[in-house]
Order: sequence, then C-alpha cells, then structure tokens
Amino acid sequence: MSLLVVGTVAFDILETPYGKTGRIVGGSGTYICYSASYFGLETRLVAVIGDDFPNEVIEDLQKRGVKTDGLQIKEGEKSFFWQGRYHDNMNKRDTLVTDLNVLADFDPIIPDTYQNADYVMLGNLTPTVQQQVIERLHQRPKLIAMDTMNFWMDHTPDELNQVLKMIDVLIINDEEARQLSGEYLLVNAARKIQEMGPKYLVIKKGEHGALLFHEESIFFAPALPLEQVFDPTGAGDTFAGGFMGYIAKTDDYSFDNMKRAIIYGSALASFCVEKFGTERLAELHKEELKARVQQFIDLMNVEL
Amino acid sequence: MSLLVVGTVAFDILETPYGKTGRIVGGSGTYICYSASYFGLETRLVAVIGDDFPNEVIEDLQKRGVKTDGLQIKEGEKSFFWQGRYHDNMNKRDTLVTDLNVLADFDPIIPDTYQNADYVMLGNLTPTVQQQVIERLHQRPKLIAMDTMNFWMDHTPDELNQVLKMIDVLIINDEEARQLSGEYLLVNAARKIQEMGPKYLVIKKGEHGALLFHEESIFFAPALPLEQVFDPTGAGDTFAGGFMGYIAKTDDYSFDNMKRAIIYGSALASFCVEKFGTERLAELHKEELKARVQQFIDLMNVEL
Repeated sequence: MSLLVVGTVAFDILETPYGKTGRIVGGSGTYICYSASYFGLETRLVAVIGDDFPNEVIEDLQKRGVKTDGLQIKEGEKSFFWQGRYHDNMNKRDTLVTDLNVLADFDPIIPDTYQNADYVMLGNLTPTVQQQVIERLHQRPKLIAMDTMNFWMDHTPDELNQVLKMIDVLIINDEEARQLSGEYLLVNAARKIQEMGPKYLVIKKGEHGALLFHEESIFFAPALPLEQVFDPTGAGDTFAGGFMGYIAKTDDYSFDNMKRAIIYGSALASFCVEKFGTERLAELHKEELKARVQQFIDLMNVEL
Repeated sequence: MSLLVVGTVAFDILETPYGKTGRIVGGSGTYICYSASYFGLETRLVAVIGDDFPNEVIEDLQKRGVKTDGLQIKEGEKSFFWQGRYHDNMNKRDTLVTDLNVLADFDPIIPDTYQNADYVMLGNLTPTVQQQVIERLHQRPKLIAMDTMNFWMDHTPDELNQVLKMIDVLIINDEEARQLSGEYLLVNAARKIQEMGPKYLVIKKGEHGALLFHEESIFFAPALPLEQVFDPTGAGDTFAGGFMGYIAKTDDYSFDNMKRAIIYGSALASFCVEKFGTERLAELHKEELKARVQQFIDLMNVEL
C-alpha cells in the first residue's frame, strides 16, 4: 500500500527548558514521513524546500522508503523556517520567528508516479493547498486524513470548511476541536465536527491521550506518563504519521483497526518528545516501537 | 466486609452555568457513603453535623446500609457550610463562603461498633483529624485510603506528611500531586509521593481520566466523554467512595483489582456530575451502574 503525504519540510530553532538548538530539520511532512516509515510501506512526499536544505536528510528519508519525486527544490530560495520557545511545563509555546520563504507560493504538484495513492495524509498547511492536492488526484484514495490549526480557523474559515467536506479523518488537538466546533465538551464538539464533513475525528490531548470518534462510537487511548518531555515539537505530526502509516500498511480502515493505529501513533509520538527534533525518530528501532506499543496496551489493560 | 468513612456531612450552595441551588446536602462523607452504598457492604460513617441537618437524609443513608453510630449531632450548632461558583467550563471554581461551624472543633469519636473495620476511607479533612481516626482504631485495617487538598499542603504540611506515612492509598487530583511533590510530570510526582508513605497513588484528572501508580506499575483509566457536566461537586468523593467500596466489597486490594475499582469509581463519578448535589446518586439503579461500567470497558477496549 502507498501513503501520500503533504506537509512542510523545513528548518526549526527550538528553545525548551533543556536547551536551545541550532537550525535543525523539522516540518510536518518530515515528521510524518519519519513516523510512517516504520511500517515499511511506500510513502510519497509532496513538499517544497529551498536549495539550503541538507541533501543527507533527503537521502535518509529515501533509504526509509520515502519517495521524493514530489519534493520541489527551489534554486536560490530558502526553506520554510520556524523558531519557537516552550514554556516551563511544555504545554505552551511562543512563536518567535516564522519565515514562509518557499512556502509563500507553494503549488503542490502531484507527479504521475504518485497517482493512485491508496491513503493520503494532509499535514497542516493552508486549506487551499490541501484542497489542491485532493483535486489533483485522478482517483479518490481509500482514506484521506488531514491536520489543521487555529490559524486557518481564524483566517481562512471558508476554505477550511470546504476542504473538511472532502476528507475522511480530521486529526486535531482538543483546543482546536473546541474552536472549530464552538463546543467545550469534546463529545459535543465531535458531533458538530462530524456534521462538517469528516466521518472520523481524532482529538489529540497531549499528555492526556487521544480520542477517536465515529458516529456513536468512541475510543479513548491513554498517553504514556513520561519521565521527561525534552521537546514536544513534531509530536502531533509523528502521531498522524504513525496513525496513517499503520492504517496504510494494514490496508484496513475499520474503527477497530483505527484504534490500533492510534496506539501506534501514540507510541511513536512518545519517542519523538525524548530528544530534540527528529533525532529520536531517526535512530528508533522496530523492537523499541514494539515494546512501547506493549507498554500502552499494559497501561490500559483491565478485565472485569 | 466493612468500610469506615470519615468526612464532612454538610450543606452547600452551588452556582454553575446551569443554575443556582438553594441550601442542599453535600460534604465528602455524604458523597463517599452514597457511592460506596452501591456495593451492598457495611459502611460506617464518622462525621459531625449540627441540629439543622435533615433527618430524612440520615434515614436515606441508613436504608442504604450506612451505619451512623459515629455521626455526632451537636445540639444548638450548625452544620458545615460551603458556597461555591463554577466558571463557564466547570474546570475552575471560586469559594464564596466557608462556614466551618461544627467542624471547627471536630473530635472524631470511633464507636466500639466501628472497631475492626476492614477498610478505611479518610475524606478530605484536617490531617490531624485523619491521623486521630487511624490512631483510635484498635486494629490496623487492611487498607487505608485518604484524600487531601492544596489547603493542607499550604497550611499544615508537617501534619500532612505525618499522616501520609500511616496510609496505603492516596487519592488526589493532578494539581495536588504536582504541588505535593514539586514535580510537574506525573510519573515523577508519583515516585516522590510514594517515597512519602503511600504505596499506592491514584491521581484524578477530571475529564482526562485517572492514573493508578504502584511501584513500577501504572494503570490509566479514561473518563467517559460526557455530553453535559451539570455540577462537578462531589465527583472526586464519589470516585473515592466507589473505589474503596468496590475494594471492600471484593475484599481484594491487588493492583489488578484496584484497576477495576478505578473503573467503578469513575463510573459512579460520571453519574454524580449529571445533576446537582447527590440527586443523581440517590436515584441511581444498579443496572445503570453496570451498563456504565461496560461503557468504560468498551471505551478503552483494543486488541493488537
């Protein structure tokens, strides 16, 4: 099975209570691809970078089975850049710098070799770009998932509402679900959001786990209580990459399999936060992932 | 099996976005007893009230198997009174009035008929009163659980630390666990708190569920995503009453059984918030409880 991924491939400078990085590689597309690559499927990346982006990262992704025919490299231009600082408890962060650079006029071209993708993960980008990607696919994929953020709810609500009607799974956090629906209680937020288009809704709650909603069914997955959260950057994208990677690999988008996909996504995200940037994901072994998935299962195992 | 309960039996006036009550019956001891009574065990209440407390509530508790030999009635005095107002999202509340009344010089007398209690639940009270109860028991119960709050951490930390060394299970919320331990991440908070005395720690996270810690074992129970939270008052006490009621009824305080006890406590708490005060608990049927416990199990059911 194949998974088409659209997202940013970019540079970050991160400040956490544990230190400050130099310019490191980040971006939603990067995290999604690293995460999805653990399932040994064909991941097809659509993104745009400048000529400043390190070739060895692209080669590392390729080695992991990520196709980069759709990765546009703009000569003489700079990659997207974000700098942020996390507060002491890591639950809040301030954006210090956002340089759109190549992202300002991103035209997501889908190479012919990417057509007929079975599954699609639309990372957080302008709703217009997300919609373009869907419209440029000759054949409707089996399942389209997408992420978004408060910024698009504030600034391009019409475009966001339009793309929401075209997708199957929305993956957002609790604050975003509340803002999108205007409902505080998540079960009510989920009902309203499902009426806006997506038949499936995943609400990420960070250290409090994640919820999956579909019609009247709900699944509540825990988060692993961690001893150290070093850098939360990319955890949400890593979750999404693991979630869709597992679904694509198993080629099964039943509610029961989505529950398993949430456990895999959560497990991968729990590694992501252990080091700065993509460092922990890049060095992760499959045996470690397997053991951590079992930790999640043990954490929530109860029999009456 | 028998469960000895110490706590407040009191009056509340509550304001939520859904309305304001008159003077209604509340108190930690009241909620714990209502909740524990669903397991058909002998619950023994130690508390103090004034002569203003309605006799029909005492009779209702007695009908549910609650012994009231240890309920002191102070003639010419008033029962403890608390008035509070919840913020819009129900996650925060302001205390408007606290009248200690009979609670100011509460001397917890343990009737002879209460001796040899198998299990003990110490509701939130001054650590000194909690310690007195333990010291006045002729025989060490099988398991002693207690609740406490930030107020005692701020004002009587020495007394609190002393009673923590005498108990088995501490049941507090996430904010309290952070304050008590000085650690933000709950797994680190749990380790420090276990070093302070209690071998078992339950951290309640409201709408985010509850965590059970014991040595290296952790269990994460979800909260039911609710469509309406009408009044959160007493939910924590109801949880504690259900948790200890289930353990006492089954006479099993293994880690595995504590996990089940958390599900029962969570299920009872989810009913508590549906109406003002003890109203929903007082009218709850055992079949409803059974069905809701199953909802919790379904909510977290996943197989790899």
